[in-house]
Amino acid sequence: MENETVTVNREREEHVAGGGLLHRRAFLGMSAVAAGGLASGLGAATDPRSPVSMREPGGALSGYGTRAPSAEIIQRIVPELPFPGTGSSRTPLQLLEGTITPNGLHFERHHNGVPAIDPATHELLIHGLVRQPLLFRYDDLLRYPRENRILFIECSGNSGTIAAAAPVQASAGQLNGLVSCAEWTGVRLGTLLDEVGVDLDARWVQAEGADAAGMTRSIPLSICLDDAMIALFQNGEPLRPEQGFPMRLLLPGIEGNASVKWLRRLKVIATPALSREETSKYSDLLADGRAELFSLRMGVKSIILFPSFGLDLPGPGRREISGLAWSGHGRIRKVEVSADGGTTWAEAALGGSVLPKALTRFRIPWRWDGGPATLLSRAVDDTGAVQPRRKEWVAKYGIGQGYHSNAIQSWRIDESGHVSHVYA
Amino acid sequence: MENETVTVNREREEHVAGGGLLHRRAFLGMSAVAAGGLASGLGAATDPRSPVSMREPGGALSGYGTRAPSAEIIQRIVPELPFPGTGSSRTPLQLLEGTITPNGLHFERHHNGVPAIDPATHELLIHGLVRQPLLFRYDDLLRYPRENRILFIECSGNSGTIAAAAPVQASAGQLNGLVSCAEWTGVRLGTLLDEVGVDLDARWVQAEGADAAGMTRSIPLSICLDDAMIALFQNGEPLRPEQGFPMRLLLPGIEGNASVKWLRRLKVIATPALSREETSKYSDLLADGRAELFSLRMGVKSIILFPSFGLDLPGPGRREISGLAWSGHGRIRKVEVSADGGTTWAEAALGGSVLPKALTRFRIPWRWDGGPATLLSRAVDDTGAVQPRRKEWVAKYGIGQGYHSNAIQSWRIDESGHVSHVYA
Repeated sequence: MENETVTVNREREEHVAGGGLLHRRAFLGMSAVAAGGLASGLGAATDPRSPVSMREPGGALSGYGTRAPSAEIIQRIVPELPFPGTGSSRTPLQLLEGTITPNGLHFERHHNGVPAIDPATHELLIHGLVRQPLLFRYDDLLRYPRENRILFIECSGNSGTIAAAAPVQASAGQLNGLVSCAEWTGVRLGTLLDEVGVDLDARWVQAEGADAAGMTRSIPLSICLDDAMIALFQNGEPLRPEQGFPMRLLLPGIEGNASVKWLRRLKVIATPALSREETSKYSDLLADGRAELFSLRMGVKSIILFPSFGLDLPGPGRREISGLAWSGHGRIRKVEVSADGGTTWAEAALGGSVLPKALTRFRIPWRWDGGPATLLSRAVDDTGAVQPRRKEWVAKYGIGQGYHSNAIQSWRIDESGHVSHVYA
Repeated sequence: MENETVTVNREREEHVAGGGLLHRRAFLGMSAVAAGGLASGLGAATDPRSPVSMREPGGALSGYGTRAPSAEIIQRIVPELPFPGTGSSRTPLQLLEGTITPNGLHFERHHNGVPAIDPATHELLIHGLVRQPLLFRYDDLLRYPRENRILFIECSGNSGTIAAAAPVQASAGQLNGLVSCAEWTGVRLGTLLDEVGVDLDARWVQAEGADAAGMTRSIPLSICLDDAMIALFQNGEPLRPEQGFPMRLLLPGIEGNASVKWLRRLKVIATPALSREETSKYSDLLADGRAELFSLRMGVKSIILFPSFGLDLPGPGRREISGLAWSGHGRIRKVEVSADGGTTWAEAALGGSVLPKALTRFRIPWRWDGGPATLLSRAVDDTGAVQPRRKEWVAKYGIGQGYHSNAIQSWRIDESGHVSHVYA
């Protein structure tokens, strides 16, 4: 690529905020970088100068397609040793695009490993404060009416290192990769609760998984009767074992651990069970010493994925700042980006379809002039909730509480193009 | 499951068409089948009666999750022997759910196998009637602004057996599985054409792949400047080799072969090249002896996936009829279903988000009384186009022309619950 040329239509640029942010509609004709020259690429299929791929028949058809060896993205595994099945694996968000997470890269969080469950013998029991307790096998559930929705799942501990005293230097996925998004298909939980007949004094449902942690969570009945689902399929195919095969609870917008995997039991109860997972774990200690219990819904949030730690900039010029936004309360209304540490902000474009309780991609063009820059993103959802600055978040929770962090994250680019995690 | 009970709330049923079709909103409390009894499922995690999965730690975290051995759905491979890389593999639509096709199950159609391409050396040339021909490497394209869209791709030969004199007995996926849907992310082709500067007399673009077929297609410039994309990512991750890694053309709503995979060259031209793929192949012979050339846009279409061939009904009762609908012209406006061979029709519910040029799931509850029934579905898109009956389609194209079949497909259920493909 000897004749590389950089052609920039500067006359089309419309600066809308400090630090080089350009109007979000300044996309077409943006002419970031083009490589000129015709040294190769002109040969026909029979021409010996044409690529070898055109001169030899290619590989076979696939029963199940595989990835290119040069593009095998994998998740970051964070086991809680000595238990290799316990811990998390994190979606490498900064290497992915769009909003759908491929099934193999959906984040994982297991409390005692991934059970191998035979769907032919697995049973889901719904009992407790009900008219008629019922037992459902996998094949039974397959006969029920289904619904499909594109939804994110986020672990309540995602981005928890934002509570650390100093910013952790790690990739966007390592810091924030306990969130993924897929199209889930299953049976609405309300359909099954209608079937068993819930008593008038019922207020909560305790869900239990068939894993060796016996993972249990209490969920308000109102959420179970709203949009909760027993998910059976993920991006079209049956759930993966790591995602709860053969069936999991799926609570749109709610912290991930409550969407109990390998679901075997739903007990309808009057008051929350106050299990280990909702007292010792998954309650949010506040700065004033009190704790929030059952703070289940995930807040409005966004993260910048490019640029981000590990994806340094080779030199000045025009780029696209890109990231993901979501809210457990509904749709993303807007995402604003700052390139000057939060002094001025400009609205990003939202890509694709903006769906409720799903990941939304945002993008904004940016001219990096080669000087230091600090990038932030701030999401607003359709309830009007605004993603907080880190100092506001820390004022509420103090230092060291890592659940439900939706604070704004900041990346600093230095003169060499190196990107680091900062508290701005 | 000794105490199996069938509880059906008949009083909630509202029949809306012949053959047992129920109102599409008759979902909640539909109570299809519930299995009563409490013979198992009550043991706590430490109880020896509890499942073995609760008594032993589970498996390890995954860098890339895999499927449950009992749920490993694969595609149907249809090679054109003796060339194992040439032919098609078809998405097993009847075994999948929702609308997103997982990357490993996206249909394939190769004309001379799957090339193994190194993204570090692959180049895309845009030349012809342009101000400045340009050569783009993969890394160059990664610097351009991106967009993400959920889109179907359908092979123009999909459902081509509808033109056979007698109905072929095969699964819905074998007959219609040359269609899939994914979230694609890439660079808008218009951005690159703006960069090279298209001449005033340019009207077409010839696309060429780097495969051993040297697959070439001519595409109207208007389509290239509309919503065409150079796709780099599929459901978040880099394209699979079978889908054109490292880059493919993606023309929303247009027949699949024109979305040239392994894209290496776009030549801007004044008149179509009339290559082998648009004369000998991919032109539609009409019943009157003339042929349609460049009939690129896929028509409005729907198929019923449950019940369908290979998924026989074990007995009478309430079911959910489910299928997929799509149109190359835009969004699906409605899908109607008939259970009496087309005499009466009822409107199905559309699941999830109805996106333009994407697959849309439809569902409608149905009570099968155990007698013979013939099921049809008919889609209407937002341009008002209506999916044609097979006899209308055959009147236009005659027998044996298999491209662009969007005719209504019919399944007949006999008294034993066996499902067969019929012409109704």
